[in-house]
Amino acid sequence: MRIIVQKYGGTSVGSLEKIRNVADKVAKRYREGNTVAVVLSAMAGETDRLINLAKDLSSNPDSREMDVLISTGEQVSVSLLSMALKDLGVPCRSLLAHQINIITDAAYTKARIINIEVGAIQKVFAAGEVAVIAGFQGITEDKNITTLGRGGSDTSAVALAAVLGADVCEIYTDVDGVYTCDPNICDKARRLDRISYDEMLEMASLGAKVLQTRSVEFAKKHNVPILVKSTFTDDGGTLTTKEDEDMEKEVVSGITYDRNEAKIALLGVQDRPGVAATIFSALADKNINVDMIIQNMSTDGKFADLSFTVTKTDFDKAMEIVRKKVNELGARDVVGDTSIAKISIVGVGMRSHAGVASKMFEALAAVGINIMMISTSEIKVSCVIDEKFIELGVRQLHEVFELDKPGSNFEKD
Amino acid sequence: MRIIVQKYGGTSVGSLEKIRNVADKVAKRYREGNTVAVVLSAMAGETDRLINLAKDLSSNPDSREMDVLISTGEQVSVSLLSMALKDLGVPCRSLLAHQINIITDAAYTKARIINIEVGAIQKVFAAGEVAVIAGFQGITEDKNITTLGRGGSDTSAVALAAVLGADVCEIYTDVDGVYTCDPNICDKARRLDRISYDEMLEMASLGAKVLQTRSVEFAKKHNVPILVKSTFTDDGGTLTTKEDEDMEKEVVSGITYDRNEAKIALLGVQDRPGVAATIFSALADKNINVDMIIQNMSTDGKFADLSFTVTKTDFDKAMEIVRKKVNELGARDVVGDTSIAKISIVGVGMRSHAGVASKMFEALAAVGINIMMISTSEIKVSCVIDEKFIELGVRQLHEVFELDKPGSNFEKD
Repeated sequence: MRIIVQKYGGTSVGSLEKIRNVADKVAKRYREGNTVAVVLSAMAGETDRLINLAKDLSSNPDSREMDVLISTGEQVSVSLLSMALKDLGVPCRSLLAHQINIITDAAYTKARIINIEVGAIQKVFAAGEVAVIAGFQGITEDKNITTLGRGGSDTSAVALAAVLGADVCEIYTDVDGVYTCDPNICDKARRLDRISYDEMLEMASLGAKVLQTRSVEFAKKHNVPILVKSTFTDDGGTLTTKEDEDMEKEVVSGITYDRNEAKIALLGVQDRPGVAATIFSALADKNINVDMIIQNMSTDGKFADLSFTVTKTDFDKAMEIVRKKVNELGARDVVGDTSIAKISIVGVGMRSHAGVASKMFEALAAVGINIMMISTSEIKVSCVIDEKFIELGVRQLHEVFELDKPGSNFEKD
Repeated sequence: MRIIVQKYGGTSVGSLEKIRNVADKVAKRYREGNTVAVVLSAMAGETDRLINLAKDLSSNPDSREMDVLISTGEQVSVSLLSMALKDLGVPCRSLLAHQINIITDAAYTKARIINIEVGAIQKVFAAGEVAVIAGFQGITEDKNITTLGRGGSDTSAVALAAVLGADVCEIYTDVDGVYTCDPNICDKARRLDRISYDEMLEMASLGAKVLQTRSVEFAKKHNVPILVKSTFTDDGGTLTTKEDEDMEKEVVSGITYDRNEAKIALLGVQDRPGVAATIFSALADKNINVDMIIQNMSTDGKFADLSFTVTKTDFDKAMEIVRKKVNELGARDVVGDTSIAKISIVGVGMRSHAGVASKMFEALAAVGINIMMISTSEIKVSCVIDEKFIELGVRQLHEVFELDKPGSNFEKD
């Protein structure tokens, strides 16, 4: 008997009508003879409604109580889906984090799962029932309620699939899979049938919003196949799974972009040890994540320009911190730029193919796009460019790497 | 150090503004040096909203899942009040049924409390924090979520006050106490400063909607003083406490009425054993509660008329059941009447004073009100009358028993 974990996102359970539709899909898998656990998000808009309630009440809502508040969203959706399933004659039972013991650390609003006990769920399975599990939530060892951060239900689902030894974790959402690039920008975007964990990880962290990064890390570690599908059609889907030879043939699997980047440059910084540490530890103290960092030496070797990127959200806070350090570092000036964006190519095949990066740079140059910063990893190359060239850049790279066609797309000659 | 349990109803926490107001009241008690536990209902309208959601989804929503759904209402209000208290600098912590272990039976939507562990709350008290506790909810031994029925938060509060050995249980609501009669009907209605558990019990079960009957039973059993007060004024309040000599001096403490009654009469029933049992067990099977029952013998001793009352809500269902039994019982006819109501006088002093009932009957007769049925207990007399005479009857009895003045109100001569 196959064990299937299904996860439905907020838009999939966004109305009573849609909840009935989800019940039909769950009932189908159950009647095929599978053992089924369903993980749900809150109804679309509900988590925001609750957060706004808290923000209207308090300028700085207590984070422990915030989690008590927002975890009700999933409690509502699991109870409603269970009612709908019972109406279809499917035996089932809703389960909350404290009923299962989904143990997390105490980092309220962004907790991490430490352990999940399988006893309660296996009891439900043994009774022939579908387990309808609230995603996004956990409890600490002391029984405090926690939540896992935006998109945390993905992580709940993958973690449950891992501990239950599920054959597959099906993530139902409002798109029918992972595409070679954003179909809203490029009409030649192609849905990928399969993708490796590492590629999915890069794509998730580079701005593709299909899965929470942490859920992919979890899936990779525990080797849980993730099938991303649309709730609203039966076709399509992208399977995220471990790497194999076929995948390596595809040098570039996808192109992503992220508009939520801003650049800060410190000009004429004295070239002495500790400069970078001063800046970046000051930023880290305020929980500001820095993405790319580039240091250019001046010609005389005495002064350097130090540039880095942060999210647009953190930009004002970061500028304030950096300005305070300008004198201390003897820098000449600090300049910020929020009209930038990051464009990236991703593919496991890069590991075994040289010249991918330079092909990307040439392609961008060919359409007049200037590259401001570059960063690379084993399986991705990212460039910071002027934000206004994003659509052009995505279409150009999609074309040059021939992503509209499956199969090898590089140096076929 | 005094231990105070405060309970705030749905209208008291019905908006963010009102929640801030409650926080002020709690903060005041806390700063006076008291140890405080606060029990909350859901924000006004929230429980109904959730119930309607379930009813729109399913014609017969599963009762276990209904409790998972509706218990979120209290979870929202305790988290919000805790945020508001922290903004005032009051250390506090929200607690749900599963965090305290408020253990109930498994009668979903109308569960009864079996046991409450005090450990978690005492830990919060020991840390100098206010415990902000979700009312209305419990869990079974198996960790299933339950709710205690309409008004169940009163019972939560009293039960908590009992196990915590609280000095008082303050119930904050939208009225400022218990009155000698409904102030909307009689402008001479007077607020009672004190009332005994038994009187409060009779008044609650006779239709005065200030406290859930079960909460008063609990308070009596564990001798918890209950102070009913208004959330919106500092004055007033009625203390429900154990009986003393002063109370016995008041022969009648209050007058209540209940419009939610309907009468069913079986005419010409054969007078043989088992007739009543046939009818009333059939009604009990369908969970219909019968209030008053009267059987009149016919003059020839062979046939009887059997009358009884049910709630107006159950009337149609009850009539259907009784009609089916008419032939079986050889009854001549069955007639129903929904235009009736029940008017009652309550007072512990009745125990030691004769003639109270006859004074009531005379008073009603004096203004031309016909009495259809009568029932009595040690401390109350109830009469069924034509519904249209309710206001007149209440005012007449209030006048005759001199309830507008404190002190002895019967046979002073």
